[in-house]
Amino acid sequence: MARPKTPRLNRAMIVDAALELVSSSKGLTMPGLADKLGVSVSSVYHHVRNRTELVELIRGRIAGREFGDLDRNGPWRTVLATWLREYRSAFSPYPDLVRLLIGQTISAPEVLEQYEYIAGVIIAAGFPREEALPVIMVLDSFALGSALDLSAPDEIWAANPTEHAHLTTAIAAAPAEVVARADAAFEYGLRCLLDGLAFRLGETPTATT
Amino acid sequence: MARPKTPRLNRAMIVDAALELVSSSKGLTMPGLADKLGVSVSSVYHHVRNRTELVELIRGRIAGREFGDLDRNGPWRTVLATWLREYRSAFSPYPDLVRLLIGQTISAPEVLEQYEYIAGVIIAAGFPREEALPVIMVLDSFALGSALDLSAPDEIWAANPTEHAHLTTAIAAAPAEVVARADAAFEYGLRCLLDGLAFRLGETPTATT
Repeated sequence: MARPKTPRLNRAMIVDAALELVSSSKGLTMPGLADKLGVSVSSVYHHVRNRTELVELIRGRIAGREFGDLDRNGPWRTVLATWLREYRSAFSPYPDLVRLLIGQTISAPEVLEQYEYIAGVIIAAGFPREEALPVIMVLDSFALGSALDLSAPDEIWAANPTEHAHLTTAIAAAPAEVVARADAAFEYGLRCLLDGLAFRLGETPTATT
Repeated sequence: MARPKTPRLNRAMIVDAALELVSSSKGLTMPGLADKLGVSVSSVYHHVRNRTELVELIRGRIAGREFGDLDRNGPWRTVLATWLREYRSAFSPYPDLVRLLIGQTISAPEVLEQYEYIAGVIIAAGFPREEALPVIMVLDSFALGSALDLSAPDEIWAANPTEHAHLTTAIAAAPAEVVARADAAFEYGLRCLLDGLAFRLGETPTATT
């Protein structure tokens, strides 16, 4: 029986390895990536032109994987809420990627397509042109900030009831576990943001998203 | 004339060096920090118990420096807006710190004091107890996400008018330069969030913060 061949290097394998590397203490470098894959640096460069392209492949993987089931036919509020929930879920396993991805121009085609769609929804909803980008950026900032919240410890504040009475009260009234607490805050903020946006459109804010 | 003595190591010097290190490719480690300061690792440990304490000293430095002039007597909306603006400004020079600071329990006294004050403002504004922590966390997420926005490139999206007509329109209607664009988006989002919060209190959202 023939021995199974070592699988040939491909882009998917490179992105897999990069996603593992990025959260390690070593960070993401091309030599580190080659090392992890057990190949030469030039083999990696054969598939990926440079670090910039690698980062865009990673972006495409994360965005492409999670944004698939966006309901493109609902009202703006529902579409934006769905997008934001999926966006946050997609990035929350990779808190170390957020900084890297923000620092680089987005050129991953599947991600540009997402933003194009969202821009269309926002303009169709009736937001003036000059508000379209602020709306996108605000949703973006909130989703990324909320994704990072999921990497907080269970105890966010070392508050004590004597010195921090209000904070202690607030903490006691919220879920103690990080995911439940972050999820509740995210949904609360999403509602507030969408209410604020609806108000700008002259629509009546609603209690549901 | 006596030669000037090498200044004795102190905590402020250690925090200065740590703030420089954290944004370097090497990241923040105790040996790296000692190396940068030109002292032994044990000298650093003489002043700072461990990396956790170091991170809290950094947090205190950043928070303590910027949150000084909070007007503690205005309406809740003004206080929260001021806090958020200062919060974003304080963190925006240090995008590489955000992930580090979120991952660790907050014990820096001056920062706990800030949150205690903000929790008091939120509760006094009339938010139910169980909403107090979500409000804090939402403001937090938005401020940190917005701080990271300032490290984006001038060209966030490599959009082209043919494939990305809506996105191109949105981009063209916004400031082209990163700081002006991020500032406008932040102020827009701040207004939306505060409007959404006001709506939850049964107050009439206003156009000004």
